Amino acid sequence: MRTLYHLPLDPGCRKVRMLLREKQLECELHAEKIWERRDEFLKLNPAGEVPVLVEEDGTTITGGAQVVAEYLEEAYPENPLLGDGPLCRAEVRRLIAWFDLKFWREVTANLVEEKMLKRFLGLGQPNSSAIRAGHANIHYHLEYIGWLSDRRNWLAGEDFSLADITAASHISALDYIGDVPWQMHPGAKDWYARVKSRPCMRGVLGDTIAGAPPVKHYADLDF
Amino acid sequence: MRTLYHLPLDPGCRKVRMLLREKQLECELHAEKIWERRDEFLKLNPAGEVPVLVEEDGTTITGGAQVVAEYLEEAYPENPLLGDGPLCRAEVRRLIAWFDLKFWREVTANLVEEKMLKRFLGLGQPNSSAIRAGHANIHYHLEYIGWLSDRRNWLAGEDFSLADITAASHISALDYIGDVPWQMHPGAKDWYARVKSRPCMRGVLGDTIAGAPPVKHYADLDF
Repeated sequence: MRTLYHLPLDPGCRKVRMLLREKQLECELHAEKIWERRDEFLKLNPAGEVPVLVEEDGTTITGGAQVVAEYLEEAYPENPLLGDGPLCRAEVRRLIAWFDLKFWREVTANLVEEKMLKRFLGLGQPNSSAIRAGHANIHYHLEYIGWLSDRRNWLAGEDFSLADITAASHISALDYIGDVPWQMHPGAKDWYARVKSRPCMRGVLGDTIAGAPPVKHYADLDF
Repeated sequence: MRTLYHLPLDPGCRKVRMLLREKQLECELHAEKIWERRDEFLKLNPAGEVPVLVEEDGTTITGGAQVVAEYLEEAYPENPLLGDGPLCRAEVRRLIAWFDLKFWREVTANLVEEKMLKRFLGLGQPNSSAIRAGHANIHYHLEYIGWLSDRRNWLAGEDFSLADITAASHISALDYIGDVPWQMHPGAKDWYARVKSRPCMRGVLGDTIAGAPPVKHYADLDF
């Protein structure tokens, strides 16, 4: 069986899980406590990071979520999620980079990493100025999501794409801890409601971390 | 004419310049002083970052160097630089991510950004502990380059690829300021000598920044 080593709240891992579901590829999930630095896992990926995808024949794909996603797109070209033609694909990839680099640095790292990952890694108290920055920065990005989905069916164009999946991978992790101010951003909320109703979201919406359950509305389609 | 808005020492811009040369695509270079936040440039890319590629018909590709590189691979598939087949391509992309994320964070940001970019951006004195960290971290990465090229013809396998270009885009920027300890890493040096002799390096090896010329051996094939 194909196996994905992952962390439930890691946006990169969520992206790969959603992509696997969109492509209807069966996969066993293994939650890897990377802070334990397990020998067997380090043999798979000396960098010690998730996600790591291991195919049934033992082929191992590492290098980060976008490397795994590009691999899945090429190895399983049915249900393409990167769009059609170099220009559309550049727009999908531009938005992927926006969320994985800019949004991650300005929002996800300041909130999800500070509040959750630091706790598991035993890195001490969350940094309150980082958390303030995360709460301030998220508005601008939610406005951008609203602006895009006012003008397009999905974030990168007519079709649901890996750009929507990537944005949702971050937003859903933030929503798990209740850090998305939905009331102030109806455009982004409408887009996320449509994403939430897709089958690919079922896995991540079912997540519950022991000792840190999600906020009440996390899995509700009507939130 | 196709135009690339760039900064001479930015590894991402160097990567795109080298890739354009490998693909024999003519391109005019425009050195963009991003810290001036020129209106016309911000219209092309509101994020204010380089590289930005503008095709002859006005099509504009933004989102970072790897987005531009993937676009060029798809729009101009001759002389492919990402390798053949999903697995080889995953290995090329794994190493690209290694250099663009890990090497950048641990080495390039600590040395090139601290010493050069801060000066142009008027961000004050370089941080000496960052510089110390950069000098300490580079050894491990140069050893990894040596280890890979002991086992393979080029970094990702038999063929010269975007992994070599990406690694060289960082290493060449560091070499410009004399920050690569070549004597201690003969394997990495041998690999870089082979990269340097490729026509795609001619452009970046010809760079001279006013007021900050390169070290003496920078463009020498015998260094």
